[in-house]
Amino acid sequence: MRAVVIHGERDVRLEDVPDPVLASGPEASGLDAIVAVTAACVCGSDLWGYRGISPVAEPRRIGHEFVGVVEQVGANVTTVTPGDFVIAPFSVSDNTCLNCRNGMTGHCLHGGSWGAQVRDQGFADGAQGERVRVPLADGTLVVVPGPIDPAMVPALLSLSDVMATGHHAARSGGVTPGSTVAVVGDGAVGLCATIAARRLGAAQVVSMSRHPDRQQLATAFGATGIVPERGDEGVARLKEMFGGIGPDVVLECVGTRQSMDQALRSARPGGQIGFVGLPLGGPELPVRQLYMSNVGVRGGLAPVRAYVNELLPEVLDGTIQPGRVFDTERPLDQVKEAYDLMDERRAIKVLLRP
Amino acid sequence: MRAVVIHGERDVRLEDVPDPVLASGPEASGLDAIVAVTAACVCGSDLWGYRGISPVAEPRRIGHEFVGVVEQVGANVTTVTPGDFVIAPFSVSDNTCLNCRNGMTGHCLHGGSWGAQVRDQGFADGAQGERVRVPLADGTLVVVPGPIDPAMVPALLSLSDVMATGHHAARSGGVTPGSTVAVVGDGAVGLCATIAARRLGAAQVVSMSRHPDRQQLATAFGATGIVPERGDEGVARLKEMFGGIGPDVVLECVGTRQSMDQALRSARPGGQIGFVGLPLGGPELPVRQLYMSNVGVRGGLAPVRAYVNELLPEVLDGTIQPGRVFDTERPLDQVKEAYDLMDERRAIKVLLRP
Repeated sequence: MRAVVIHGERDVRLEDVPDPVLASGPEASGLDAIVAVTAACVCGSDLWGYRGISPVAEPRRIGHEFVGVVEQVGANVTTVTPGDFVIAPFSVSDNTCLNCRNGMTGHCLHGGSWGAQVRDQGFADGAQGERVRVPLADGTLVVVPGPIDPAMVPALLSLSDVMATGHHAARSGGVTPGSTVAVVGDGAVGLCATIAARRLGAAQVVSMSRHPDRQQLATAFGATGIVPERGDEGVARLKEMFGGIGPDVVLECVGTRQSMDQALRSARPGGQIGFVGLPLGGPELPVRQLYMSNVGVRGGLAPVRAYVNELLPEVLDGTIQPGRVFDTERPLDQVKEAYDLMDERRAIKVLLRP
Repeated sequence: MRAVVIHGERDVRLEDVPDPVLASGPEASGLDAIVAVTAACVCGSDLWGYRGISPVAEPRRIGHEFVGVVEQVGANVTTVTPGDFVIAPFSVSDNTCLNCRNGMTGHCLHGGSWGAQVRDQGFADGAQGERVRVPLADGTLVVVPGPIDPAMVPALLSLSDVMATGHHAARSGGVTPGSTVAVVGDGAVGLCATIAARRLGAAQVVSMSRHPDRQQLATAFGATGIVPERGDEGVARLKEMFGGIGPDVVLECVGTRQSMDQALRSARPGGQIGFVGLPLGGPELPVRQLYMSNVGVRGGLAPVRAYVNELLPEVLDGTIQPGRVFDTERPLDQVKEAYDLMDERRAIKVLLRP
């Protein structure tokens, strides 16, 4: 089959790789599945390697967001059947260990990542490919009741990462009915965080965005205001909008020094930051500033598997439409262009079709 | 009257100072009160100046925890009457501004600190003295329904800071019924945090303490376990006690680099740190570690005024006995010894009688 391999800076290639097979022999757990990928996508975090910011030590399979159709299952798989349409969260989890039971499926004691060995469960293919071997299929995959409307695929795909991650920002930020919220970041995750905050009852959600197309989508997703200013001016605008003290919650959806600083300084005393931008090295959080402001910080890697069941019904009935973040689609053999579109911010989020 | 003045490192003196008077003249707000101090105390944070860690630029009045009896009130005070026994939280607040309404009374838009000018409300005396002028008396003071049993004074005094601060740690840590909790710090605040965590329903509370007398008090306050180990060994012991992953919540009640690091590494994935130790410069919080662990951090200066009403009934009926942290008492003219007892950790908390 064909799958994407990243070789180094600005070097992603669609290559022939061995077809995945179910684990066999005495050590096989029988808990795996083979899924034919219907759609995958490029993540902002895939770009760290592509940009050379996180060096690629050796060529490796890439991609961690996909939906598809189950082709085969191992002997001990009980909840997934060939023919099922499934959502694959961006990490592999058994959904039964102590961390999973605590809702922290991204920290599964027996799980792992796509495009890598998963402890004693064998190799999990990268998502940017034609097929994926899924370890711990029962714990990892979420079956979508069929039949599947093809127009629904982007929205279902968003549940594998960006919509669930936006939801994690809102949950980590403690959004509750009546909250006032600012969202730092107008990428796919920031836009989904806007959906999530409104969904949890936020009375006001301000999107900090300078791009007209993204401002428009944020508004369509329920943003009640737009602040294009950043830095001190952005802080001042938000204070002005929210009683002179700032919003209750700020959702940090970028991961840079500037975006976290913006978030920390924008929240009101006693406010909360929900952060999901993968922090690129720093900055470290100023603990005395947190102490003096009583602003809390919580977030990280989203426990996608723990959230999909909550979000799926509203995706299926169209109440939320996170699939709209996919403004561009490319076939898998144009993967390099897909990365460039994301890298140069010419696309919000690119959907890949094998 | 006599009041304590800190002049510099290891130099606190009981001095004659002018008697406080209600503000008068056209600019007086009529919102102040004069309170005769029944009991005050020395705080861990008072020691920063005493130890020379936070230099004392010029001699200043000190102390921010007291209870006493109202002697006079301004013309516009409505909720406090001469003769009332009152608890004074460690900051001055109007209890009506937006921050106060958000429960952040330590960030009152019109408030301030003891021993300093309070915006346009005049000077608030330090608490370590015979009398204190209280600006914004209605917002700041909490009247205790009389008569007051003298044996109850230490417990009431604890509500001015340490018990409310311990409660803030537990609230910031998100302790709920069934939580598993570790407390870093066995000073008065850490001990009160143990009370607070149990009071909020924690199933298990482990005190990280190496001092037999403090271990004993922690146990009396409801600790279900003691861990004397620190650093890697402390982390390992806590993991072992809590399912191999660590406790849900860690309450950081010290404020040093070591104690925060201990807290961050001890919480389970997705756990929460409630921190109230005044951070002494650093360390800055490792944002990538927070991201990868999904451990949240929240805390700071306790909004004491917002908590007293919740805690007071349980103090008055003896359900909680935070007054036991006062293991030593000194008259105000032995204030230097009181500081030394705290500084050398020969006392947990020293009560001062004018």
